[in-house]
Amino acid sequence: MQVVITAVGPDHRGLADPIVHCVTGLGANISEIQMYDHDEECVFSMLTRIDLDAKRLDELRDAMVEVSQRTKLSIRTWTPEFQERRPRLAICVTYRPEPALALLRAIRDGQVKAEPTLMIGNRDKCRGLAEQFDVPWFSVGRGDGTPNDDQMIALCDEHEIDFIILARYMRLLPPSSCWKYAGGRIVNLHHGLLPSFPGIQPYHEAHSSRMLTYGATCHFIVPELDAGNQIIYQSTFTVPPGMPLDEIIRRGQEDNEPHCLVEGVRRVVDGEVRLHFHRVVARK
Amino acid sequence: MQVVITAVGPDHRGLADPIVHCVTGLGANISEIQMYDHDEECVFSMLTRIDLDAKRLDELRDAMVEVSQRTKLSIRTWTPEFQERRPRLAICVTYRPEPALALLRAIRDGQVKAEPTLMIGNRDKCRGLAEQFDVPWFSVGRGDGTPNDDQMIALCDEHEIDFIILARYMRLLPPSSCWKYAGGRIVNLHHGLLPSFPGIQPYHEAHSSRMLTYGATCHFIVPELDAGNQIIYQSTFTVPPGMPLDEIIRRGQEDNEPHCLVEGVRRVVDGEVRLHFHRVVARK
Amino acid sequence: MQVVITAVGPDHRGLADPIVHCVTGLGANISEIQMYDHDEECVFSMLTRIDLDAKRLDELRDAMVEVSQRTKLSIRTWTPEFQERRPRLAICVTYRPEPALALLRAIRDGQVKAEPTLMIGNRDKCRGLAEQFDVPWFSVGRGDGTPNDDQMIALCDEHEIDFIILARYMRLLPPSSCWKYAGGRIVNLHHGLLPSFPGIQPYHEAHSSRMLTYGATCHFIVPELDAGNQIIYQSTFTVPPGMPLDEIIRRGQEDNEPHCLVEGVRRVVDGEVRLHFHRVVARK
Amino acid sequence: MQVVITAVGPDHRGLADPIVHCVTGLGANISEIQMYDHDEECVFSMLTRIDLDAKRLDELRDAMVEVSQRTKLSIRTWTPEFQERRPRLAICVTYRPEPALALLRAIRDGQVKAEPTLMIGNRDKCRGLAEQFDVPWFSVGRGDGTPNDDQMIALCDEHEIDFIILARYMRLLPPSSCWKYAGGRIVNLHHGLLPSFPGIQPYHEAHSSRMLTYGATCHFIVPELDAGNQIIYQSTFTVPPGMPLDEIIRRGQEDNEPHCLVEGVRRVVDGEVRLHFHRVVARK
Repeated sequence: MQVVITAVGPDHRGLADPIVHCVTGLGANISEIQMYDHDEECVFSMLTRIDLDAKRLDELRDAMVEVSQRTKLSIRTWTPEFQERRPRLAICVTYRPEPALALLRAIRDGQVKAEPTLMIGNRDKCRGLAEQFDVPWFSVGRGDGTPNDDQMIALCDEHEIDFIILARYMRLLPPSSCWKYAGGRIVNLHHGLLPSFPGIQPYHEAHSSRMLTYGATCHFIVPELDAGNQIIYQSTFTVPPGMPLDEIIRRGQEDNEPHCLVEGVRRVVDGEVRLHFHRVVARK
Repeated sequence: MQVVITAVGPDHRGLADPIVHCVTGLGANISEIQMYDHDEECVFSMLTRIDLDAKRLDELRDAMVEVSQRTKLSIRTWTPEFQERRPRLAICVTYRPEPALALLRAIRDGQVKAEPTLMIGNRDKCRGLAEQFDVPWFSVGRGDGTPNDDQMIALCDEHEIDFIILARYMRLLPPSSCWKYAGGRIVNLHHGLLPSFPGIQPYHEAHSSRMLTYGATCHFIVPELDAGNQIIYQSTFTVPPGMPLDEIIRRGQEDNEPHCLVEGVRRVVDGEVRLHFHRVVARK
Repeated sequence: MQVVITAVGPDHRGLADPIVHCVTGLGANISEIQMYDHDEECVFSMLTRIDLDAKRLDELRDAMVEVSQRTKLSIRTWTPEFQERRPRLAICVTYRPEPALALLRAIRDGQVKAEPTLMIGNRDKCRGLAEQFDVPWFSVGRGDGTPNDDQMIALCDEHEIDFIILARYMRLLPPSSCWKYAGGRIVNLHHGLLPSFPGIQPYHEAHSSRMLTYGATCHFIVPELDAGNQIIYQSTFTVPPGMPLDEIIRRGQEDNEPHCLVEGVRRVVDGEVRLHFHRVVARK
Repeated sequence: MQVVITAVGPDHRGLADPIVHCVTGLGANISEIQMYDHDEECVFSMLTRIDLDAKRLDELRDAMVEVSQRTKLSIRTWTPEFQERRPRLAICVTYRPEPALALLRAIRDGQVKAEPTLMIGNRDKCRGLAEQFDVPWFSVGRGDGTPNDDQMIALCDEHEIDFIILARYMRLLPPSSCWKYAGGRIVNLHHGLLPSFPGIQPYHEAHSSRMLTYGATCHFIVPELDAGNQIIYQSTFTVPPGMPLDEIIRRGQEDNEPHCLVEGVRRVVDGEVRLHFHRVVARK
């Protein structure tokens, strides 16, 4: 059974040893280890991907809780092998409801086989959507929309979320959040073609280049790495010369982006794609 | 009647005056003037777009011939208003036959209303295609494929070509050729999405960025200017993660590129798009 | 005598004819004509560079005033040949005083042979600097710093400014202002190396790329064109690994940027460099 | 004592466990672990940075030899703490002798405190330089200059090289070579400013952007990562507008590049900079 362990702590010294000791003690094979630092924030992180006898998963979880309590490291243990259950999603939104709405409909209709466990917003704009689909809603935003990132992670921990879906959630996750859910558990919808248009106004940038093709990209977020390499799905549409920018944006937002998110999340929850080292690979 | 005059000469001094004198003498209104220099080559160029009483077109042509003989400038007079006749195309190729084949079929079937007046190659690879469609074939390449650019322009002049179509023609036109047929008369098929992937291996570059969307771009060539701003049509296709590069290239070459060229040329010969200053605009 | 005529108007039809008629009537030779459009703003522009018998300059100016009144075009006539007089500068500033201070000192000390005719700010931060050097100060900013661009141009017209010097002036000039003073009359100091770091935070961008070289660029502003091709002067400094960003910025702002602006303006007012078509060339 | 262990093998499964077991068994603390894959080549790699009691270094070396023999992994153990001895350099060259010459002179004059243990070329052009300074010369190139990369690494292993210096060595090291000497042991001189000009013709590229600043970059090579983040030293020079490209290249090659390499290598052998995770940091 594949298991991913992430650990976040304040320095790079005490990070690896206790976890490595523990997993080798349980007879696991280490498939991958990555350590990152983010020196401006004095935050260090490790991802360990192991092969473990499925019967020893609970033992591993208990051991990691013990290591966490002893070392003050923030440790999470997760397996992408869901057995009988459906993956649990946290759908994060800000202003635009269309991609989240399309995802909730696709889940309702059985197209995406997942649990919409909770919805999180840094603004209240999409609250009604959560109510319409009977999904618990949590607002993590202060008055100006600044999110409480720790609260967001705490909510995901508490509800045993498998995948965090950023459905036009308009804030950057801090590196510590990315690391805590590293290993292919954060899926983002970007409203432009990556890696060419990474900015916050990809429609405007493509338009000012006089492009006639516009696109959206569904990708895993990997801390410290360029988003171009972790693409799950991209979809595009073509416009005639002279189409006004606001009409282009309308088509993108109402049609192309929702489609892109739904197909991207479907690929992830169906296990068709996964993150292998720093790249997306297809299930063999 | 809109008329485009291009002039190429060895310096920037004697270039504008004789032409400007002549067109104002004929009662024309000047809509646009552009002058370019390309100092490494000691070649200067001017494009003049005028509104002229259609009855005086022959008078203008004669006057320009006279100016050309007197000043040694290389001058061309052209109008994009085709009246009853069909635009005449020179289709230029190197190795890949698919886009030219698709264009010749679309012309045969009446989808693209143009005359395939001649085919030009710097290699003989596509000669059979010209024979199959009964289009006169001219080889302008030396043994190593280096084209005789002056011969290419002379052929287009002699056959009164309206549009030069670069259908995966793998050589750069020199600035002087671009200037001689400036004003929206050279249409290129690029096998990648512009402006993001301008290089000679756009499939490889997009693949090494792990993109899942590939595209082709049909655009006007404008001397000295970035190709991103003169896009006539773009088409794309999406692939699943893990598709091998050679399969991606095959799909692009056999399906997407031919489609892109045909639709781009159709837009041009139908007058749906035109070059206005340095940009493509839709016919109002 | 070289003379530059710029004209700005609301469409591209009536723009060229009256000016071209007039200059050819005066026996001038046309060295360069450029026309631009900026369709979003419905503003069109023409630059004409001519060789004129110096004795007929006043005649040209009068004729251009007459054309302007008749056609409602906004026309300016300017010659880069200063004869006995010193070029007149408008020094534009926002927050940072160092580059303007260095320029005023270099003028005072005879290193830069120019008249500091006026200082213009969209903020009042540098007003004291104008007073210290007895240069007339004009504030063109509204309460929030938004500049009155038309007032800025009116001030430059009224004071017969030769060169507009943007000395860390933090607002974009609109295209119409750039066109009115086109032809190498607007000199900008950018606090990063162009074309690599064109953004508004070039120190931050270079730092996040872990660069150890930082630079500033003095360049002509040319409407509609990338700033990378009109570089007058660049200067750089090197830092050791680990130097904090604020220390890097301090060195750049207090030492490198002022030096860069002074040397750039000196090259322009001494006529060592000039704009030839779209490029900076050295005086032969 | 800081020790770096690198291991290269054919898959990602058996890579981490034996090494991690061994180092934890010796009481070492793990400071950093990175694993990489390069799936096109089916080569996997791990870098482990540990803190070890200096007295146990030999024990670690013996254990790693044993692991290597047992597992067929290619393992190297290295410490950047040189105690009394001077770091041993392999200086790799192709055509241009200037940077290597400057480095050999700086070593001779005591400016760079290192042993020029061997020189390696994929061409014989710089052989005379090795003879002049009495440095053993090895040619690893076939007739067309294609290097035998395995031979290069074998030479470095055999001569107990600390740092591989690429002094205008014009071939790419394959990922497996980079991994074998990972951890800040490969220093490259690039003849352009990184990250802006990464290509093989950086002078040409900067010149076609009309830049007036040219530079060189000395950096660590880190497999799979962009070279922009591992900069050790950069130096620049400024040229006047209109300087011909060949004169610019001459100044860069004869003056700026040699200076850049010497100062970069000096920083490395003096321990002023080191690689910490994926970044260059200054010694505190």
